[in-house]
Amino acid sequence: MGGGGAGEVIVPYRDNMPEVLDKFASRMAGVLIEHMKRTDTDKTGEGKVVEFVTPDELRKKLELNIEKDPATLDTLFSDVQTTLKYSVNTSHIHFFNQLFAQVDAIGVVGEWITSVINTSMYTYEVAPVFILVEEYVLQKVGGLLGYSNVDGIFAAGGSQANLYAMLLARHRFFPHVKKEGWRPEDRPVVMVSEHSHYSTLKGCIIMGLGTDRCIPVKCDERGRMDPAALEAKVNECKEKGFHPFYVCGTAGTTVLGAYDDLNALADVCQKHKLWLHVDGAWGGAAILSPAQRHHMKGIERTDSFAWCAHKMTGAPLQCSLFVCNNAKGMLQEANGTRASYLFQPDKLYPMEYDTGDKSIQCGRKVDCFKLWLLWKARGDAGMASLVDKAFASAQGLAAAVERREGFEMVAPQQCTNICFRYVPKSLRDKPKEEQDAVLDKIAPKVKRDMQLDGSTLVGYQRLGNLTNFWRMIIVNPSFTDKDIQWFLDTIQTYSERVVDEK
Amino acid sequence: MGGGGAGEVIVPYRDNMPEVLDKFASRMAGVLIEHMKRTDTDKTGEGKVVEFVTPDELRKKLELNIEKDPATLDTLFSDVQTTLKYSVNTSHIHFFNQLFAQVDAIGVVGEWITSVINTSMYTYEVAPVFILVEEYVLQKVGGLLGYSNVDGIFAAGGSQANLYAMLLARHRFFPHVKKEGWRPEDRPVVMVSEHSHYSTLKGCIIMGLGTDRCIPVKCDERGRMDPAALEAKVNECKEKGFHPFYVCGTAGTTVLGAYDDLNALADVCQKHKLWLHVDGAWGGAAILSPAQRHHMKGIERTDSFAWCAHKMTGAPLQCSLFVCNNAKGMLQEANGTRASYLFQPDKLYPMEYDTGDKSIQCGRKVDCFKLWLLWKARGDAGMASLVDKAFASAQGLAAAVERREGFEMVAPQQCTNICFRYVPKSLRDKPKEEQDAVLDKIAPKVKRDMQLDGSTLVGYQRLGNLTNFWRMIIVNPSFTDKDIQWFLDTIQTYSERVVDEK
Repeated sequence: MGGGGAGEVIVPYRDNMPEVLDKFASRMAGVLIEHMKRTDTDKTGEGKVVEFVTPDELRKKLELNIEKDPATLDTLFSDVQTTLKYSVNTSHIHFFNQLFAQVDAIGVVGEWITSVINTSMYTYEVAPVFILVEEYVLQKVGGLLGYSNVDGIFAAGGSQANLYAMLLARHRFFPHVKKEGWRPEDRPVVMVSEHSHYSTLKGCIIMGLGTDRCIPVKCDERGRMDPAALEAKVNECKEKGFHPFYVCGTAGTTVLGAYDDLNALADVCQKHKLWLHVDGAWGGAAILSPAQRHHMKGIERTDSFAWCAHKMTGAPLQCSLFVCNNAKGMLQEANGTRASYLFQPDKLYPMEYDTGDKSIQCGRKVDCFKLWLLWKARGDAGMASLVDKAFASAQGLAAAVERREGFEMVAPQQCTNICFRYVPKSLRDKPKEEQDAVLDKIAPKVKRDMQLDGSTLVGYQRLGNLTNFWRMIIVNPSFTDKDIQWFLDTIQTYSERVVDEK
Repeated sequence: MGGGGAGEVIVPYRDNMPEVLDKFASRMAGVLIEHMKRTDTDKTGEGKVVEFVTPDELRKKLELNIEKDPATLDTLFSDVQTTLKYSVNTSHIHFFNQLFAQVDAIGVVGEWITSVINTSMYTYEVAPVFILVEEYVLQKVGGLLGYSNVDGIFAAGGSQANLYAMLLARHRFFPHVKKEGWRPEDRPVVMVSEHSHYSTLKGCIIMGLGTDRCIPVKCDERGRMDPAALEAKVNECKEKGFHPFYVCGTAGTTVLGAYDDLNALADVCQKHKLWLHVDGAWGGAAILSPAQRHHMKGIERTDSFAWCAHKMTGAPLQCSLFVCNNAKGMLQEANGTRASYLFQPDKLYPMEYDTGDKSIQCGRKVDCFKLWLLWKARGDAGMASLVDKAFASAQGLAAAVERREGFEMVAPQQCTNICFRYVPKSLRDKPKEEQDAVLDKIAPKVKRDMQLDGSTLVGYQRLGNLTNFWRMIIVNPSFTDKDIQWFLDTIQTYSERVVDEK
């Protein structure tokens, strides 16, 4: 397939597309496949996670400028090489920075296919295969959740999936808003745990409720929403004349990885007639594993669920979905405007296949196919083992942290988040306050050094009263016991070095 | 690169990823490149636009079911072949159904690259190259518009880009909404032309204004918002105690392709202190061409602009952006919540490079890179010629419609939309009412027949008092005079056949 030596200069788009495809697309496909192969087989952790340079330096290395005339294929090829070099290698075994990591190769191919077919998810007329694939995947996920009359939609990220839930809940309890907007007497409030993702807060901004109407509910020490505190807040808000209508539980909180007790939340929500949504963007992948599903006990009693398949299951970003329970037709009812140029009633197939009007988007990228393809490639058992492997690695790391001197967990491992601190030797006999202050100060420096070396990327953060600690996320299915030791050694070495520098 | 004969059975994900990449990813890349090559060189229009089958039939052809065990690579390969066969060929020279058509091959490769790098647009830390590329492209577009202190963001489609405008306008005039929600005395209204895209209406639903607060403004016979009618509506709303704050002009309406007179709208908006947004999702591509830019005269006086580069310029879906004029920092102010786990202030680079908090998404797919790559490949001149070619083809088709017996334009050509009807011979001496009634009835049948034959896909629709007419969209840069004749012949032949059937 090769071709296209470095000396050859081809200007694209002069009636030479077949040549461009041979000399550029084929060549790039080869480069990308080698790149993925290297990442997958390089389980030794050789190579850097990131070749960090500052924005000003990077700007000098990238030939960002677009000229009047076409660039040659050689220039484009060199741009892509620079892009690959300075991009973070999120598939590297030592990338622990976000809730996603090693991308799934079959999922990548799925994305390649949809980019070539290039259509939009509004009508069966232009997306026949993908409309059926989306429906199949949504029904399958709904089935795993134990939902009835499943309806849903793929969304542009987890935040948008959560927004769908808020929009449906609003439509159930304040149906006049769609036409008339909020009435003064509505006084709506939503409840969410203090550890929940910020998308509910942003949802309150977008929807015109305001952040004041987003009531944070206290969590227990593990980061799970306290159901008694939820009920107390509901009663308190009602007494003040507010109308609670929506509760967002979390399956796998962003920082601690906590799973809320869904049965306990469902009890409160049933009693007070509140919509119970589950933000499973991160930890929702547990439904794929019979061994881990217990984290989400009670999920069948909830009203809706959001999940990002681009997180623990490795689909390329974006791959998020929203499903709802016993609310078939409500997405259409809440969001539909029936644009006449797109959704004609006199087509060759039943109108229900034109799902675009359920969406708050118009053009909508095909995200279902890559998930379907990689899921089919692994099978249900393979998807379960992916989740089980991540949980087993997290348990292994948590146990190692507990065992190892100077290390301590700041909360028990629940999802595959490992939140811990390392107290350098010179600090161990100091009072807790002093330890905390120093650890808070050195975390950014430790991270900086690891980042500059490109050895690993991992996040630190504060939470409530806790000063900076490490939030390490395990997603990569290739992670092994050896990597556990390597990681703890690395944190220890860099921390000791930074503390000594002071 | 080939390999992977049909008889070979490989089960993926059993520690054989390099083999899977060779046998599946390489093979699929080859198939996809051949697919694109065929589409690009097959300018004769051979091959079908669509192989239409009903949802029930298609379900039988697709092996949708995911089993417990992994599928073999051969099964996946056959699934992909079925997907390619029954998907609409939106790059076919005779695909005129939507505001997008032939996908750009360099853009596709751009998408392939970002799917392999697989990162998210929130921080420079995880997306260093793409944060700079996004900034470069936004500044470049802002520069073409004549905007100052340009700020902006890539969005998940044109509807979301328009929503950003509404959110910023709200924040400028009702800054308390972010914290407190809508107050009863706010009484906000937005104004939009009766021909505008439904995304403003959906924005009003989402934001809790309600569809009643979306005031349609009368258009002239070409579909342009009537500036006097706009001012009358503004005054009328003010008299009724409402607060108009946002006007959405359109550069290229969805159906007629009309460009609003931006200078006239800006006069009204300046006088009444209203945010003027321009929905250029479709026709905004005119800014790329010195010859077509005049359609958007006055754009430098507007507050914000939305554009979908996946439409006239052929980037793979989704590729939409929002830019604003003299409102630097306002996206952050309006949408930001400063989540502490993501946006730490103590990083290795200035905080302004962590652009994720400006977004209403959290994880955000990289859409800027493919646009940058294809733009660089064509150069500014190549992008201009792409737009000029589409406009020239549209003018050619409009002229042919005017010349040819039985054909008539329902509105003058403005953007590259051609809205016309064909009156079959047997109807030509009938009164207009009867013609209208019959044309309205036969349009779905004519479309059905063309769709079943797979000869072309083109949309029909009603508008105001107009009964069904054809809305033909020219995007494909390969469209020629020969295709004009072919298209008119086809509409004529199928229409005559359907009318005779009656």
